Amino acid sequence: MLKLYVGNKNYSSWSMRPWVLMRQAGIDFEEIPVRFDSFAPGSDFKRALAQVSPTGKVPVLVDGDTTVWDTLAIAEYLAETRPDARLWPQERAARAQARSAAAEMHSGFAALRGAFPMNIEARLPEVGALALRDRPGVQADLQRLVQLWDGLLARHGGPMLFGHFTVADAFYAPVCMRLITYQPEGLSEASAAYVQRVADLPGVRDWIAGALLEHDFRPFEEPYRLRR
Amino acid sequence: MLKLYVGNKNYSSWSMRPWVLMRQAGIDFEEIPVRFDSFAPGSDFKRALAQVSPTGKVPVLVDGDTTVWDTLAIAEYLAETRPDARLWPQERAARAQARSAAAEMHSGFAALRGAFPMNIEARLPEVGALALRDRPGVQADLQRLVQLWDGLLARHGGPMLFGHFTVADAFYAPVCMRLITYQPEGLSEASAAYVQRVADLPGVRDWIAGALLEHDFRPFEEPYRLRR
Repeated sequence: MLKLYVGNKNYSSWSMRPWVLMRQAGIDFEEIPVRFDSFAPGSDFKRALAQVSPTGKVPVLVDGDTTVWDTLAIAEYLAETRPDARLWPQERAARAQARSAAAEMHSGFAALRGAFPMNIEARLPEVGALALRDRPGVQADLQRLVQLWDGLLARHGGPMLFGHFTVADAFYAPVCMRLITYQPEGLSEASAAYVQRVADLPGVRDWIAGALLEHDFRPFEEPYRLRR
Repeated sequence: MLKLYVGNKNYSSWSMRPWVLMRQAGIDFEEIPVRFDSFAPGSDFKRALAQVSPTGKVPVLVDGDTTVWDTLAIAEYLAETRPDARLWPQERAARAQARSAAAEMHSGFAALRGAFPMNIEARLPEVGALALRDRPGVQADLQRLVQLWDGLLARHGGPMLFGHFTVADAFYAPVCMRLITYQPEGLSEASAAYVQRVADLPGVRDWIAGALLEHDFRPFEEPYRLRR
């Protein structure tokens, strides 16, 4: 049985991606939650991961003797070992674009991610409006996001970025959560509808339900709130 | 013929990865240099890329009608379309680890990359020593790098991270350039020898030779020098 180590569901955008990918694609796995107490050496979090992850970060996938310690590498591993799940588009050019989109998320959108940390239970539209007003990088990231999504949805006809659900959607699912929390203006109609469709995927709904049950306020993940 | 758009060879660490990957693996391609004049909208750089890259960044790979706009996606595309080049390890568990290592570089080592921008022609050991003294994040990144490299070199026996040359080595090649430029202390003997072996790969030597010919001082890429 595959084991996936994940952090707090309300906050851990990295953990959300492979969890949603597997849940939505019907791949069985055992979930091992590792609570965020602190990221300092000696924290419970770091000690729980010391035996499995060389980076001390979540997510980590363990499959018998094989440890996969990066989110994108986990997606590739699952795509290889579970070809029936069609985690990437079947057509080569579309697959190259899906990988570009997922990897662009993996290394990019730094301003958007910095200003809008994932916080599924919160609704912070004023923070969203202020960031959009004051941080040109956030605006640029948002424009790029809309350009990317609108283009792919138009080309492949929806409902997901490449027609059916793929790794690319799993990688952008945390961004959809952020857009629901911070509600910045500037989404196109097509992009806003995509955000809602992602939030309605059964695998995403399951993750959200878990996040809402946590009630585990972590101040170091809360730049915009003093309490729940 | 594959076309690869690359930035200035002295500075563009992202461009270096797929260029070195293809050159070292013997994959033919046409190189299209796009000089860094500025990254502002309307710059020559942005205008040259506007027709090919949706992100306006380098590198971009164009194969007929297919555009691949992310470095890691380029590597996967090449691995798929050129199986004889063995760009990933053949064995599944090693391949998962090579992908983890490459993707960890893709999204991580932010402190190291921020403090030590690639600058192949420069030698800045004082900058390296000061960063190591004053920036704990740089020290942590360096420790992780040594842990990763030493572990892989010991497990697979060298000379490259997974025995023969793979995507993982191409992804760490710019870090090797940075270590040669800034010369921070703290590398293990095995890691220092690996840096030298990477620098001596024919594909890397070709890139370095191109960088040394440029003489194209770009102030916005030079936090530590006023002139050459």
